[in-house]
Amino acid sequence: MRERRLPFFLVTHLTNIAYLTGFRASAGVALFNSREGIVWVDPRYTLQAQEEARGVEVIEERKGLHKAVAAWLKAHQVRRLGFEGAHLTCADFSLLQKEAGQHVKFLPQTGLVEQLRAVKDEEEVAKIRQAGRITAEVFEKVLEIVRPGVSECDLAAEIEYLMRKKGAEGAAFETIVASGARAALPHARASHKILRQNELVIFDLGAILGNYAADMTRTVYLGQPSQRVRSLYNAVVVAQERAAMSALPGVRAGDVDAVARRSLAKRGLARFFAHGTGHGVGMETHEMPRLARGEKVRLQSGNTVTVEPGVYLKGWGGIRIEDTVHVGPGGPEVLTPAPKDQWIVE
Amino acid sequence: MRERRLPFFLVTHLTNIAYLTGFRASAGVALFNSREGIVWVDPRYTLQAQEEARGVEVIEERKGLHKAVAAWLKAHQVRRLGFEGAHLTCADFSLLQKEAGQHVKFLPQTGLVEQLRAVKDEEEVAKIRQAGRITAEVFEKVLEIVRPGVSECDLAAEIEYLMRKKGAEGAAFETIVASGARAALPHARASHKILRQNELVIFDLGAILGNYAADMTRTVYLGQPSQRVRSLYNAVVVAQERAAMSALPGVRAGDVDAVARRSLAKRGLARFFAHGTGHGVGMETHEMPRLARGEKVRLQSGNTVTVEPGVYLKGWGGIRIEDTVHVGPGGPEVLTPAPKDQWIVE
Repeated sequence: MRERRLPFFLVTHLTNIAYLTGFRASAGVALFNSREGIVWVDPRYTLQAQEEARGVEVIEERKGLHKAVAAWLKAHQVRRLGFEGAHLTCADFSLLQKEAGQHVKFLPQTGLVEQLRAVKDEEEVAKIRQAGRITAEVFEKVLEIVRPGVSECDLAAEIEYLMRKKGAEGAAFETIVASGARAALPHARASHKILRQNELVIFDLGAILGNYAADMTRTVYLGQPSQRVRSLYNAVVVAQERAAMSALPGVRAGDVDAVARRSLAKRGLARFFAHGTGHGVGMETHEMPRLARGEKVRLQSGNTVTVEPGVYLKGWGGIRIEDTVHVGPGGPEVLTPAPKDQWIVE
Repeated sequence: MRERRLPFFLVTHLTNIAYLTGFRASAGVALFNSREGIVWVDPRYTLQAQEEARGVEVIEERKGLHKAVAAWLKAHQVRRLGFEGAHLTCADFSLLQKEAGQHVKFLPQTGLVEQLRAVKDEEEVAKIRQAGRITAEVFEKVLEIVRPGVSECDLAAEIEYLMRKKGAEGAAFETIVASGARAALPHARASHKILRQNELVIFDLGAILGNYAADMTRTVYLGQPSQRVRSLYNAVVVAQERAAMSALPGVRAGDVDAVARRSLAKRGLARFFAHGTGHGVGMETHEMPRLARGEKVRLQSGNTVTVEPGVYLKGWGGIRIEDTVHVGPGGPEVLTPAPKDQWIVE
């Protein structure tokens, strides 16, 4: 805040409020100066905020949180206010502007808290490691019941149930189980479709534990894969592992993406890889840094990112392999240690 | 759009895009004129959008969806553009404004699509009814394993597992199981806390099915409740049922809230009821109309709303009862038919 000359900073992204204060809810607004903070909550959250929020004053407000903030800004004659441009809606901004008085200068900021969140301390990495271990264990357990005749939905239900049974709070995101031609949709959800013999099945799953997520993808084949399928699968694994091993402190995020892309290009597969190579993962499943084409930001020790190349062929299916990787001081550490070589289910 | 003199309307709220086109994703932007529409998607969603989106052209865009929209607006010399003020961030708005050229007049709109969504047709009500039935069945099933010694988390896991097993896509929201003093937090999540004898336990759950949610709360007591607890429980049930029965077409939303509040006030409990009486439920768990103090909007046949009064006593616990109610042409219809009289678990 000092660097950006911001005497006050308004935080409206709930995950950022949770990161800064420990208070996690579905509504709330926080205001910070360089020494202290206030969080406004509605009556549903007063008790919880008083219990959870550290280092901030809790104010209960019944008539609109943004209105209350505006009144505070006016009463305290705030002149310069940073806010989260990507996390304040036009409607709330208009209200703030109207009610706070004309002397407040609103200064949109990008990624102020997200940059802090991108670098995890040991305690945070430990939570993601544990979430990753549960994710891997659950996948191995579910492999035992993967066979022609079960539905995508049933497998997703089993996955999320086992995550909880192993102590996770639940799934960090809607579990993807996509089989056959549906595996060509990178973000297919689990449907009522029944798995059949001679199909690829993509599993994209992640547990959340202590508010930190893991994210992992494995692909399996039901039956005896053809030479073509084997070679595609191996190409994706090689691209994934090369990219993961390149995730070192000081390397540009875009260069990790380039490693995956070049590796697939050598087999003529680059054009079937229709998304970025990865993203940060932590309190949110998608956070900074992005590992995508041309991203110039350099990885730092303490980043935790996914590395997840894939190939998708319309009407036919797809293969994606993903790990959550800790950019550790001693090199990349895979936090989702499920095997990649047990992919043929007979 | 004609009424509001909007030749073009930009839709950025993903649920609204899903409602209007059938395409449901984690990213996308749609633009409509009075006859047709365009939806911009990134390469992850191209195939899915082509399959799912009805009545709109699908454009794949690799370099930022809002940038592509701005270029389109500029190329087609759009002069007046409605947009969703509550669903466009300041950052995206700035980008649009900068890149679309200075001739575009941006007109923030409130609730244009949400008003349509608030009134469900028969097919939509049927989905919510089925989601509600599953929700009620799951709760009754889970009641069989509620006892001192099990953890809140285990019960939440069981609930979400059973929802899927019964054909739901999953839970519409994070299942709440809050026992003992934690039941005083209206939005507590399930924790690792173990249920104990002589505690109240609040269950707030809802299945999602065919993209439509149900939302239901029941409270149970482990052991023999005191006269005081019995009288509190009955007060909440009475308030809930009176309010639900008042949810008729033409009644103001605020009046349903007043029925619940007055009913609790008669027993001196109004000050322990710290939130609104309910909210619309459909493709989102919280949508229009809100049933809260002073809400002037009138209920319409086809609304589906929750009715969920509660009393919360700090450090002691809480009691909440909630049903999803269809404001039907023939009167209110409870869509979450779980019993309220089997609340004493011994």
